[in-house]
Amino acid sequence: MSRPIFFLTDFGLADTYVGIVKAVILRIAPDARIVDLTHEIPPQDVRAGAFALLTAAPYLPEDAVVLAVVDPGVGTARRPIAVPGGRRTFVGPDNGLLSWVVDIASGAVVLDRPGFWLPTVSATFHGRDLFGPVAAHLARGVPLTEVGSPGGAIQTIPLPPTHRETGKDGETVAVHGEVIHVDRYGNLITSLTAADIPPDPVVEIHGQRIAGLAPHFQAGAGVIIALIGSAGFVEIAAPNGSARDVLSVAVGTPVRVAAAP
Amino acid sequence: MSRPIFFLTDFGLADTYVGIVKAVILRIAPDARIVDLTHEIPPQDVRAGAFALLTAAPYLPEDAVVLAVVDPGVGTARRPIAVPGGRRTFVGPDNGLLSWVVDIASGAVVLDRPGFWLPTVSATFHGRDLFGPVAAHLARGVPLTEVGSPGGAIQTIPLPPTHRETGKDGETVAVHGEVIHVDRYGNLITSLTAADIPPDPVVEIHGQRIAGLAPHFQAGAGVIIALIGSAGFVEIAAPNGSARDVLSVAVGTPVRVAAAP
Amino acid sequence: MSRPIFFLTDFGLADTYVGIVKAVILRIAPDARIVDLTHEIPPQDVRAGAFALLTAAPYLPEDAVVLAVVDPGVGTARRPIAVPGGRRTFVGPDNGLLSWVVDIASGAVVLDRPGFWLPTVSATFHGRDLFGPVAAHLARGVPLTEVGSPGGAIQTIPLPPTHRETGKDGETVAVHGEVIHVDRYGNLITSLTAADIPPDPVVEIHGQRIAGLAPHFQAGAGVIIALIGSAGFVEIAAPNGSARDVLSVAVGTPVRVAAAP
Repeated sequence: MSRPIFFLTDFGLADTYVGIVKAVILRIAPDARIVDLTHEIPPQDVRAGAFALLTAAPYLPEDAVVLAVVDPGVGTARRPIAVPGGRRTFVGPDNGLLSWVVDIASGAVVLDRPGFWLPTVSATFHGRDLFGPVAAHLARGVPLTEVGSPGGAIQTIPLPPTHRETGKDGETVAVHGEVIHVDRYGNLITSLTAADIPPDPVVEIHGQRIAGLAPHFQAGAGVIIALIGSAGFVEIAAPNGSARDVLSVAVGTPVRVAAAP
Repeated sequence: MSRPIFFLTDFGLADTYVGIVKAVILRIAPDARIVDLTHEIPPQDVRAGAFALLTAAPYLPEDAVVLAVVDPGVGTARRPIAVPGGRRTFVGPDNGLLSWVVDIASGAVVLDRPGFWLPTVSATFHGRDLFGPVAAHLARGVPLTEVGSPGGAIQTIPLPPTHRETGKDGETVAVHGEVIHVDRYGNLITSLTAADIPPDPVVEIHGQRIAGLAPHFQAGAGVIIALIGSAGFVEIAAPNGSARDVLSVAVGTPVRVAAAP
Repeated sequence: MSRPIFFLTDFGLADTYVGIVKAVILRIAPDARIVDLTHEIPPQDVRAGAFALLTAAPYLPEDAVVLAVVDPGVGTARRPIAVPGGRRTFVGPDNGLLSWVVDIASGAVVLDRPGFWLPTVSATFHGRDLFGPVAAHLARGVPLTEVGSPGGAIQTIPLPPTHRETGKDGETVAVHGEVIHVDRYGNLITSLTAADIPPDPVVEIHGQRIAGLAPHFQAGAGVIIALIGSAGFVEIAAPNGSARDVLSVAVGTPVRVAAAP
């Protein structure tokens, strides 16, 4: 059985781009199991793609090949790479997309061996012509070291931001972060994690103060809650509603958590 | 070959939730065949999910495992269950979602055996941590009786509503129902079935009177038609257009059918 | 291993239509590999479906079965057909949808053998009741000649339009086409191909003049570029933005290319 391929892009599902890449993969690895992580990363939003990979990576099979293409620099000098993350292998452009989930110390394999690509490589669709074929060969069992050459350090992007606010004695009085993702339900996923939360927290966002963490999404009508979400980040939610709509916030909105006075 | 898994949620496709559940399933059942029924059930709309299952169930393979998660009560006391429907097995929350497609008399199996779950179960993502793993074990052949304990009756929600309007002699003069789903084309699927339709019917909705049933979707421009749709319910359509837009109606709009005078 | 099935419709993903067809296929061909090309063809837009097939076809495995359903005439006299395209087989309604990708000279096989369909065929969902089952049987290895009868010529629709503008000596001075598809990024895919482009081209659209072809999507902010897109057509793009939004154009907008003066 070949290695499963997990596929994430900003291609959307309205065009045939995703289906074409899968067709190319099946020509190389006819028994490939291809699972969509999502294709609705906002166009060219490398950071949103990196965050989506971060939430999914812990749950992927250990032998997974992850094909990730959010690639505004396609056709330019940005490098196509494959990088290990444990026993998993991540394939995509070297623009920071992979930098939150791979073993940074391992270094990249630069995909420089056209024998693993389609015979003709366009300047605008490396998902089809290069990344997809390489992922298919990896799925079939070709070792990572064969699909390219050692490439050293990869491009990174800053991790989801948090910073500590300290009092006059240097003690932490609050932690600041921001909304890093808004999900389908309008839940606000922030860059704060459980480790940033004091025992009796107050979460502040857009003038709203939320006392305590809720155990789940059930709450009274109109109540805004904060909880530790399923990916380990502090989430802000309006049960049976959309916190995004209620609070009129978006990705990038600051959030602050402090101990209750 | 493992049992096929049919997967329905309100997760949407913009986040990685669906992909993560599939990843978890593949770790347990590497050869799983997972088919999406839909993931665009409106958020928290249990009734819409139940209707979607109702339309799909007759066409599923007899050995199907159906994984259905529309679960606003995740993390509360609502029970996780698995219920037979013929030889098929339905897995999801006990909130009525499954109640239109399972063998009510069989009673539920309450999913109370953590050995079939992920090692850590969050309070907000049982699709990933509990329902998906259980579906995967069932797909591999674990018997229903092993994944939980007998749980008795399940929660039910009322079937799509219809009621009869009677004349002074008690005879049926009309049947009333409502729009229960609006599909991608703007077709209005109602709660009325062929059994509710007299030989020479007039369908009334939002002040519009539609005489007779059409055999198919082809009709003159601007014409509104009624027909027996592919799931066996009376549908109202604007051929090559959207009845929803033309009639400005939505789920819940009343519909009435009577014999032509 | 059965032949892979590539699946394209205008069904959308919000309803269970796509999932139901896959369920029906799996009942007939339990090991079927089904790959979505797209299901977001605009409702009833046969030409958009034909274009989507045109862009995908060259990349499909040679033994592919292509199941394509954009079928406003379902239930009327329009014929259900299967047509070869090389070793691939295309299944769908005879309304022009398949006419850009099949071997026109081969003629159609009319699907007139109910033994390959579901026992009951509705008037409105032949994807489920007829086309899907036939595709599944073809995937299992049933020869094309067995699923129907020789049907002669298929319906065709005009290829994406271009015409030459000639000078007073009859020489070509420009080529005219139109926007035939707008993709997820807002890129405008036109009906012009590389063969229509003079060595030093100026592309004109909606009053905008674009000199030269860009090698890739990277360009300065606010710049509109033209390039040969991944499907071989001239594309107009606003790098890191949407040319559709910047230029306020849509499918059908005229485009002209001439040599620079």
